[in-house]
Amino acid sequence: MRVAVIGTGLIGGSVGLAARRRLGAEVRGVGPEAERAVEHGAADVACASIAEALDGAEIAFVATPLGMLARTVAEVLAAAGPDCVVTDVGSTKTAIVAAADDDPRFVGGHPLAGGEAAGVEHARADLFEGAVWYLTPGPSTTGVLFERLHRALVALGARPAAIDPDVHDRLMAAVSHLPHVIANVLVAQAFRAVDDGETLPATGPGFRDATRIAGANPPLWADILIANREALVAQIDEAVARLGEVRAALAAGDRDTVLRLQAAAHEERRALLETHLAGGPERELRVAVPNRPGVIAEIALKLGRAGINISDMALAPSPDDTQGEVTLWVAEADAERASAMLADR
Amino acid sequence: MRVAVIGTGLIGGSVGLAARRRLGAEVRGVGPEAERAVEHGAADVACASIAEALDGAEIAFVATPLGMLARTVAEVLAAAGPDCVVTDVGSTKTAIVAAADDDPRFVGGHPLAGGEAAGVEHARADLFEGAVWYLTPGPSTTGVLFERLHRALVALGARPAAIDPDVHDRLMAAVSHLPHVIANVLVAQAFRAVDDGETLPATGPGFRDATRIAGANPPLWADILIANREALVAQIDEAVARLGEVRAALAAGDRDTVLRLQAAAHEERRALLETHLAGGPERELRVAVPNRPGVIAEIALKLGRAGINISDMALAPSPDDTQGEVTLWVAEADAERASAMLADR
Repeated sequence: MRVAVIGTGLIGGSVGLAARRRLGAEVRGVGPEAERAVEHGAADVACASIAEALDGAEIAFVATPLGMLARTVAEVLAAAGPDCVVTDVGSTKTAIVAAADDDPRFVGGHPLAGGEAAGVEHARADLFEGAVWYLTPGPSTTGVLFERLHRALVALGARPAAIDPDVHDRLMAAVSHLPHVIANVLVAQAFRAVDDGETLPATGPGFRDATRIAGANPPLWADILIANREALVAQIDEAVARLGEVRAALAAGDRDTVLRLQAAAHEERRALLETHLAGGPERELRVAVPNRPGVIAEIALKLGRAGINISDMALAPSPDDTQGEVTLWVAEADAERASAMLADR
Repeated sequence: MRVAVIGTGLIGGSVGLAARRRLGAEVRGVGPEAERAVEHGAADVACASIAEALDGAEIAFVATPLGMLARTVAEVLAAAGPDCVVTDVGSTKTAIVAAADDDPRFVGGHPLAGGEAAGVEHARADLFEGAVWYLTPGPSTTGVLFERLHRALVALGARPAAIDPDVHDRLMAAVSHLPHVIANVLVAQAFRAVDDGETLPATGPGFRDATRIAGANPPLWADILIANREALVAQIDEAVARLGEVRAALAAGDRDTVLRLQAAAHEERRALLETHLAGGPERELRVAVPNRPGVIAEIALKLGRAGINISDMALAPSPDDTQGEVTLWVAEADAERASAMLADR
């Protein structure tokens, strides 16, 4: 298998390392760090152009900085062959998906992995081990290309999960972008809490955990927050309303309400932690599907919305290409529900 | 040495374990968990009353739940002998210090240590290893008693730091109580981010770190938040104002401001992390002081305000008891500054 990596920084470099080691793929890198990627074992070849990197590629990962991602995805789609699946790793999806203009070869992607340190020298083959990797197949996405990408991501150690682009962006605003904004607020206030300016407060492990993401990679995060600003503003408004609720209870000395909010958070946190930690034995599900565009996307999104993780998939088209059979592996615990949902179609 | 522990839960039990192992003290426990504390090696004797626990005690640690702490401190002070230093471990200090009514034997305390799990069965002798332990000596505090407590805490592995009670409470609102309130807000929003109610979002390690403290021990934290509600409301108001600033920049698509805030948080976090991590060689400082009440408190607070950690101290009164000499150990890096500040007195 040939894999093109456009932009070989931390994420692209880690894709390259993992694709070479775990998929046995030949990785062709392009971008300002491509030579260094070869030195670090994250690519076999450093190419001078996108067209050269795409030569013979079955999968193209676009992993350039967020600010140039939409443009690069369009360029890659223009240069890629008809049998190459093109994906990206951007942390917001609506704008990128719009830029791909319903191309049947495009599937938006977003691995929930990374780190503070940028650059190919921090790339790791195991960066995606166990990480959720969101995919946004569209109504035109070709099933066979989606399946190829899905299987490759599983081989990289990731857990692909299909999701609608706008749900993805709202979700990321809630579980990633708002937490970053708020961590910044927390460090700003801690920094100023001792107003004689002579010393900074000692902080415990709770504070350090709560603010680990504060001030993360400023240029990268400025781009991310701006890219998802609409969804993020809505989350900020909701946070301000919730803070107002606690404030009112505190000002009134209303311990019952404070206790209720604390207890609710206790349960919500537990429920969130348990999500996607199911594990356990898996079951194979077979579904015969018409081999039309979008059908795989539809199945993947349907299960994704229900929180059912497809741990692996295989697609076998019928000889006349009018029908096909998809085999999905899901956790034993989810199998009944997934079966029922698929039978429903 | 005899140590009384009033309330032998997680914190009191850990004090007991550490005092027995690291101070070689005889620990007398009292409270509903005292028998279990003896079983767990956290006390030598389970006493039936506060008076019995205080028999011959040189240090009394009051570690009951926050709601009854002020009352218990007053009871312990009423029952303790003239040579017993009484301290507490409550996470807010103004109310407790007021309850102690300038008693020369009282020093408020607050170790920045603990855990989600309550109860003596989770107590650990190394719970305070390297942890900042705030102390609030008052103008009447007897120097020899403060020194005894300070040395004992160092022996338990902690790093005592003197602080004014109101500064302590404002600081805790910023570095602990607001982060808890905000972590609750974050899990509440993540929990509701997928509004079809069918599934919960997968979250990355950043979110899990940012919300590790969400919903912590609800009854305990309801008490803590209510106890410090005045300072906490001020912090919430400040957080809302800061969120408004980011919101305005996002709504305007103003990347420069978003980048500036992100970069500021980056620097502030780094500065906060570096605080109290100095380490390195230490220097002994000797100061001759008049042996009057409050002088030790004054020195400790002065250095504490300047962020200078007293890693150990020893006090030698002059034979006629009118003068004395304090020896302090501070980090080599802080020694010049500390000398100058002490010479200044």
